[in-house]
Amino acid sequence: MQGAHLLLSSVILALACSFASASDPDPVQDFCVALNDTKTGGLFVNGKFCKDPKLADAGDFFFSGLDKPGNTSNPVGSKVTPVAVNEIPGLNTLGISLARIDFLPYGLNPPHTHPRATEILVVVEGTLEVGFVTSNQQDGSNKLFTKILNKGDVFVFPVGLIHFQFNRGHYNALAFAGLSSQNPGVITIANAVFGSDPHINPDVLTKAFQVDKNIIDYLQKQFWSDNS
Amino acid sequence: MQGAHLLLSSVILALACSFASASDPDPVQDFCVALNDTKTGGLFVNGKFCKDPKLADAGDFFFSGLDKPGNTSNPVGSKVTPVAVNEIPGLNTLGISLARIDFLPYGLNPPHTHPRATEILVVVEGTLEVGFVTSNQQDGSNKLFTKILNKGDVFVFPVGLIHFQFNRGHYNALAFAGLSSQNPGVITIANAVFGSDPHINPDVLTKAFQVDKNIIDYLQKQFWSDNS
Amino acid sequence: MQGAHLLLSSVILALACSFASASDPDPVQDFCVALNDTKTGGLFVNGKFCKDPKLADAGDFFFSGLDKPGNTSNPVGSKVTPVAVNEIPGLNTLGISLARIDFLPYGLNPPHTHPRATEILVVVEGTLEVGFVTSNQQDGSNKLFTKILNKGDVFVFPVGLIHFQFNRGHYNALAFAGLSSQNPGVITIANAVFGSDPHINPDVLTKAFQVDKNIIDYLQKQFWSDNS
Amino acid sequence: MQGAHLLLSSVILALACSFASASDPDPVQDFCVALNDTKTGGLFVNGKFCKDPKLADAGDFFFSGLDKPGNTSNPVGSKVTPVAVNEIPGLNTLGISLARIDFLPYGLNPPHTHPRATEILVVVEGTLEVGFVTSNQQDGSNKLFTKILNKGDVFVFPVGLIHFQFNRGHYNALAFAGLSSQNPGVITIANAVFGSDPHINPDVLTKAFQVDKNIIDYLQKQFWSDNS
Amino acid sequence: MQGAHLLLSSVILALACSFASASDPDPVQDFCVALNDTKTGGLFVNGKFCKDPKLADAGDFFFSGLDKPGNTSNPVGSKVTPVAVNEIPGLNTLGISLARIDFLPYGLNPPHTHPRATEILVVVEGTLEVGFVTSNQQDGSNKLFTKILNKGDVFVFPVGLIHFQFNRGHYNALAFAGLSSQNPGVITIANAVFGSDPHINPDVLTKAFQVDKNIIDYLQKQFWSDNS
Amino acid sequence: MQGAHLLLSSVILALACSFASASDPDPVQDFCVALNDTKTGGLFVNGKFCKDPKLADAGDFFFSGLDKPGNTSNPVGSKVTPVAVNEIPGLNTLGISLARIDFLPYGLNPPHTHPRATEILVVVEGTLEVGFVTSNQQDGSNKLFTKILNKGDVFVFPVGLIHFQFNRGHYNALAFAGLSSQNPGVITIANAVFGSDPHINPDVLTKAFQVDKNIIDYLQKQFWSDNS
Repeated sequence: MQGAHLLLSSVILALACSFASASDPDPVQDFCVALNDTKTGGLFVNGKFCKDPKLADAGDFFFSGLDKPGNTSNPVGSKVTPVAVNEIPGLNTLGISLARIDFLPYGLNPPHTHPRATEILVVVEGTLEVGFVTSNQQDGSNKLFTKILNKGDVFVFPVGLIHFQFNRGHYNALAFAGLSSQNPGVITIANAVFGSDPHINPDVLTKAFQVDKNIIDYLQKQFWSDNS
Repeated sequence: MQGAHLLLSSVILALACSFASASDPDPVQDFCVALNDTKTGGLFVNGKFCKDPKLADAGDFFFSGLDKPGNTSNPVGSKVTPVAVNEIPGLNTLGISLARIDFLPYGLNPPHTHPRATEILVVVEGTLEVGFVTSNQQDGSNKLFTKILNKGDVFVFPVGLIHFQFNRGHYNALAFAGLSSQNPGVITIANAVFGSDPHINPDVLTKAFQVDKNIIDYLQKQFWSDNS
Repeated sequence: MQGAHLLLSSVILALACSFASASDPDPVQDFCVALNDTKTGGLFVNGKFCKDPKLADAGDFFFSGLDKPGNTSNPVGSKVTPVAVNEIPGLNTLGISLARIDFLPYGLNPPHTHPRATEILVVVEGTLEVGFVTSNQQDGSNKLFTKILNKGDVFVFPVGLIHFQFNRGHYNALAFAGLSSQNPGVITIANAVFGSDPHINPDVLTKAFQVDKNIIDYLQKQFWSDNS
Repeated sequence: MQGAHLLLSSVILALACSFASASDPDPVQDFCVALNDTKTGGLFVNGKFCKDPKLADAGDFFFSGLDKPGNTSNPVGSKVTPVAVNEIPGLNTLGISLARIDFLPYGLNPPHTHPRATEILVVVEGTLEVGFVTSNQQDGSNKLFTKILNKGDVFVFPVGLIHFQFNRGHYNALAFAGLSSQNPGVITIANAVFGSDPHINPDVLTKAFQVDKNIIDYLQKQFWSDNS
Repeated sequence: MQGAHLLLSSVILALACSFASASDPDPVQDFCVALNDTKTGGLFVNGKFCKDPKLADAGDFFFSGLDKPGNTSNPVGSKVTPVAVNEIPGLNTLGISLARIDFLPYGLNPPHTHPRATEILVVVEGTLEVGFVTSNQQDGSNKLFTKILNKGDVFVFPVGLIHFQFNRGHYNALAFAGLSSQNPGVITIANAVFGSDPHINPDVLTKAFQVDKNIIDYLQKQFWSDNS
Repeated sequence: MQGAHLLLSSVILALACSFASASDPDPVQDFCVALNDTKTGGLFVNGKFCKDPKLADAGDFFFSGLDKPGNTSNPVGSKVTPVAVNEIPGLNTLGISLARIDFLPYGLNPPHTHPRATEILVVVEGTLEVGFVTSNQQDGSNKLFTKILNKGDVFVFPVGLIHFQFNRGHYNALAFAGLSSQNPGVITIANAVFGSDPHINPDVLTKAFQVDKNIIDYLQKQFWSDNS
C-alpha cells in the first residue's frame, strides 16, 4: 500500500519533470503574463488569460529555488521540480518550460509521456540509463532507443513517446530538462492505466495485458489507495 | 505465447486505428501528393515528398475497401483498418485521416495513445464501452472519462491521452474514426512497455509498477516472441 | 420560390456537412471544453472559452443521434448533419469534427468550400459522383478531379477547394466525413454568390459571369426569398 | 467566345491578385530561398526546396516592375500582378506576398477566394466597391460586408471568404494588396464552377443553381474554350 | 537633446512601419473582430477578444487616411503609418497588416527588427537604399543583403532580422509594406539598446560595444530624454 | 583590433548561446533525424532532410561534453556552448534546444536576440544581472525588465526581444538555457549593426544613432577585422 502511495507521489512530481512541447500556438504580442485562474470570473481559455501588460514586471518572468534538491523519499526514489507556466506566469504563450530532476541511487523517473512536449535533458551529476520507445512500427515492433548518460551528456525524448530515466549509479544524480511547451503535461503510464479515478474496467486491462485477472486486481489495488 | 502473438498483431492494426492529430503543419499549395519513399533517393522529409503536381490524378485521393470487415481473429478480438497518408498519398500535408474499427463480441481496442492526433469516433453497429484518462492532475489523480456508446453515438479522445474501446455486446461492433493527422501514430501501451525491441531493463519496470520482478518477467515474455 | 427555399435549407445543412480543417491552433492543456456563448458576458475569443476543467465530464465529449438519417426533403435532396464544436463542446481546441451526409436518389451536396478544413469521406451506402476543382493554375485552367465512389470507398477534398457529392444511384446514399477543424465552416457557392444578404451588386455578377443581366436577376430572385 | 477568353485571362491574372494567407508554417532558419523546380530532380515538397544559403544574394529578395500597370484589355477590365514565391524566391517559408491590381473604368476583379490567405488592400487611385461574403450562418444566410473605397482607404478580406473589387469610377483605379501566404492561391468562382477542365457534370450544376439546364449549358460553353 | 527627441519620435512611428509576421495562430471562425481593451474587464488574451460576430459590420474591416503623408519632421526624416490590429479591429486572428512609409530626402527608417513579422515592401515614389543583416553565421560573420530600390521595386525583409530603409534621392520617397502579423511589433535598435526605460547598466553596453564608457554615456543621454 | 577580434569570437559562441523558439512547425512522424547537408545533393529544405528512419539509433539523440566549461578567454568573458540541431541531429522537427553558458567574473553575454526562440535560463553557479527590453511601446518607450539572479534562479527571455546576461560577481558563473527552437538563431546587436559583411552604409548608422560620424567609423573599424 505504502509502496503504491510512494509511486503515486513520484507520479505527481514526474508531472513537472520531463517535457518539451513541439508547438504551442505563437504569441501575437511581446508577452502575455498569465493571470491567476481565480481572477477570471469562471472563464478559461486555451492556455491562460494575460494580466494587463502595463502591470507586468520582472518578477513575472522569475522563479527561485531550483538550487534545492527535490524530496526523493518516495518509492521510485526520484523527484521532478517543474518550472512551467504555473510556476512562471510570464511563460504563457511562449512555448517552453524547464525542470530539475533529482534521483536517489537507483532512483527512477518511471515510464511516462508528455502529450505536448519534446524533452531535452542534460546530466549535471551522476549516471543515468535513459530510453524512449517508438510508436508501433509497420513491422509490429516498438523500438527502444536507450543510452547510458554521464555528467555533461545530453539526450532528446521526442514529443508523445514513452520514456524513462533510471539512476544506475551508487550516488545521487541530478539533471535539468528543457521542454517544448508552457504546459507539457505528463502521463505516468502505471498510474494512468492502473490507478485512474475511477479505475478502468478490469476486463479491459486483463485483455489488454493478456494476464490473469488477479494480476490486474493486484495492480489496481496498488494504485487505488493513492487517489484516496 | 500465441496469445502474445495475437496481441502483437492487434497492435499492428491498432497502429492504423484511431487517431486524429491536432495540428500538422499547413499546406502552402492546393495539395502535395506523397511520393513513394522508394523514389526519393534515400532522402526523407517531415511528412513526405510530393509527386509532380501536374501528374496528380483523382486516384491519388482515393482508397477502396473500407466496406470489408478487418480480420479480428486475434487475442484482443478487434481490428483497425487505417486510411492515412500511407493508404491515400493525397492526404500528405492535409492534417487528417480515417479508420474503420471492427470488434468481435468482447473485442477490445486496447489502451493506446496517438502522439499526433485527436480522435472522433462514431459507432455504426453495436455497443462500445469507451474511455480516456487525463494526464496527471495537480491532486495526483488521473481522471477516467468513460461512456457506453450505442449505434449513432459519437465520442472524442483528445490528442495524446490514453484511451480504449471495448465491445460490451454479444454481437460484432463497427465504428469509424476521424483523426487529426495524416499520420497520427499509435502507441499501444502494453506492447510499448513490455514488448519493445529490445526490452526495457526489467529493473525499471519492476520499480515503475511496484510489483515482483517475476510478474514483469512474465509480462515481458508474453510480448517478446512478438518481435521475433 | 419554394425550390429556392429548399436549396437554402440544404445550404444550412451543408454547413455542417463536409469539412476538415488543416490546422487549428494547438491545445496547451488536455482539453478545453467549450463554454456556452451565453455565459461569457459578451466576450468572445478565437474558438471558444473553456469551462472550468474540474467540471468537465464524459458528456462533454459525447453526441448522440448520428444513426438517424437527416431530413432530405429539400430541392437538392441531401442533408448534412454536423458534429462539430457546437454539437460537442469537448472538440474545442482539438482540430477535428465529423459529419453524416444523407442523399436521396439523385440528391446533391452542392458545390461548396470549407475555408478551414480538409474533408475525408467514406461511403457507407450507395454510389456517389464526387469531385473537387483546383485553384487557378498557371496555364489558366482549373482542374477537376472526379471519381465514382461505391460502398467502402474513401475520397479526400483538400482544404479550401470547391467540391461536391452527387448521388448517381436509384437508391439513398449515406456517407460519413471527417473534417480537420473544430469549426470547418462551409460556403455554398450558389448561395454565397447569388443569395447573400444583402445581394451583391448585379453589375458585379453580370460582368463576372459574362451573361445577360436578366439571368443574374433570375438567379438572385431564386435565392433572395431564402433569407427572408 | 472571346468574352469567355477574356474572362479566363482575367482569371489568370486574378490568380496573382488579392491574397494573404493566415498561417504558412514557420521558418526554422533566417530564410530558405526557393530553388527552381527544374533543379530538384522530380522531387517536390510542401512549399519549395531552398538553394544553398551560402549562395543566396540580395537579388533573391528582389522584384522589379510593379510601377507598370497590368494589361487590363480583357472582358473584366482588371489585371492582377502578383509578387509571390514564384516571383521572389526569397519569400519561401516567410508567409507573405504582395500584388498590384489595375482596373479600367468599371473594371472588376471578379468574385474569388484565396484558400490560404487573408488580403489587406489599399487604394492608391480611384474608387472601388469592394465586398466579402461570410460562410453559411446558423440562420441560413450569407452576410455581405461591402464598402465604397476611395484613395487611401484600406480594407480586409478574411482568409477563404468569397470577395470582389469593382471600379465604380470613370477613371482607372489602382490598388496594392498584402496577402498572408507565400502562395495564397486564387479560385475565381465563375471559372472554377463553369470552366473547369473537364467540366463538372451539368446535372450537378443544374441542381445546384436551381436553373434550367440550358442556362448551365450556356455558362459552360462560355468558359469551355478558355481551357483550350 | 532635441535630435534625440526626434529620433525617439521616429521610433514610435517605425513601430507601425515595416513588419510582416511569419505565423500568427490560425482563426477558427470567419473572423474575430477585436474588442476594445477597455471593454474586457481587465482580462487580456493572446491577441484580442472578439466582439459579438452578429454585431460586426464592414466598418470593422476598414481604415481611412493612407493617402496622407506621415509627419516626417523628426531627426531621422521618416514616418511610418501602421495599419495593424489597433487600426483595423477586423485584422484580429488574420495574420497580416500594412504600413505606409514616408521619407524626406535622406530620410531614414533606422535599423530595427519585427519580432513577429516578415516585411514585403514596394516603392511607390523615390529611391531607397535598403538592407537586412543575417543572424550570426557559423564563420562568425553577419551578412548584409543590400539593394538600391527604385519606383516599382519590391524587397523582402525576413522575420526577426535587423533591416533599414534609407532615402538616397533628393526627393521625398514613399513605400507601402505588407507584414505577416496582425501585430508585428518593432524594435528600433538604437532606442531599445541606449534608450530603454530604465537604462541598461552602462557596464553592459561598454563591454558589448568595446568602447569607452563616455561614448556609452553620450549615447544613453541622447535617448534618455526621449522617455521623459 | 584584438579586442574586436575577441568580441567577434564571443559573437560566434553567442550564436549557440541563449535562444528558445516559439513555434517550429510540428512533426508528422515520431522523429526526423537530420541528414548531413553534404549528403543531400545540393538540395535544402526548411529545417533539415531526415535520414532513413530505419537507420536511426540512440546516438542520433545524444550529445556529450556539456560538463566542460566553454573557452571564455575573449573580450566579453563569456562563452555559449549550444546543443541544437547541428549538434544533435535528432532534434530536427522537435522545436527545442539547449545551451551551456560560462562567464568569467564580469563576463557578459552581450545584448542579442533570437529571432525564432524564447529562452528559459537557470543559474547553476554565480550571480547574474539579466534583462530584456520590450518592443517599442505606444508611449514611445522600450521597457527594460531586469533582475539579479543567484544560484537556482530561473528567468525567461521572450522570443525576439533584445536581452543580455552579465556576471556581477567575483567568481565564474554558469547557466543552462532551454530554447524553443531546433535552430533559434542569434543576432548579436553590436556585431550585426557595426560589423556586418559588408558594412552598413555609415550614413545610415550616423543618422540612426544620432552621433558624429567618427564614432560610427570607430565602431565599424572595431568590428571590421573580425570578418577578415
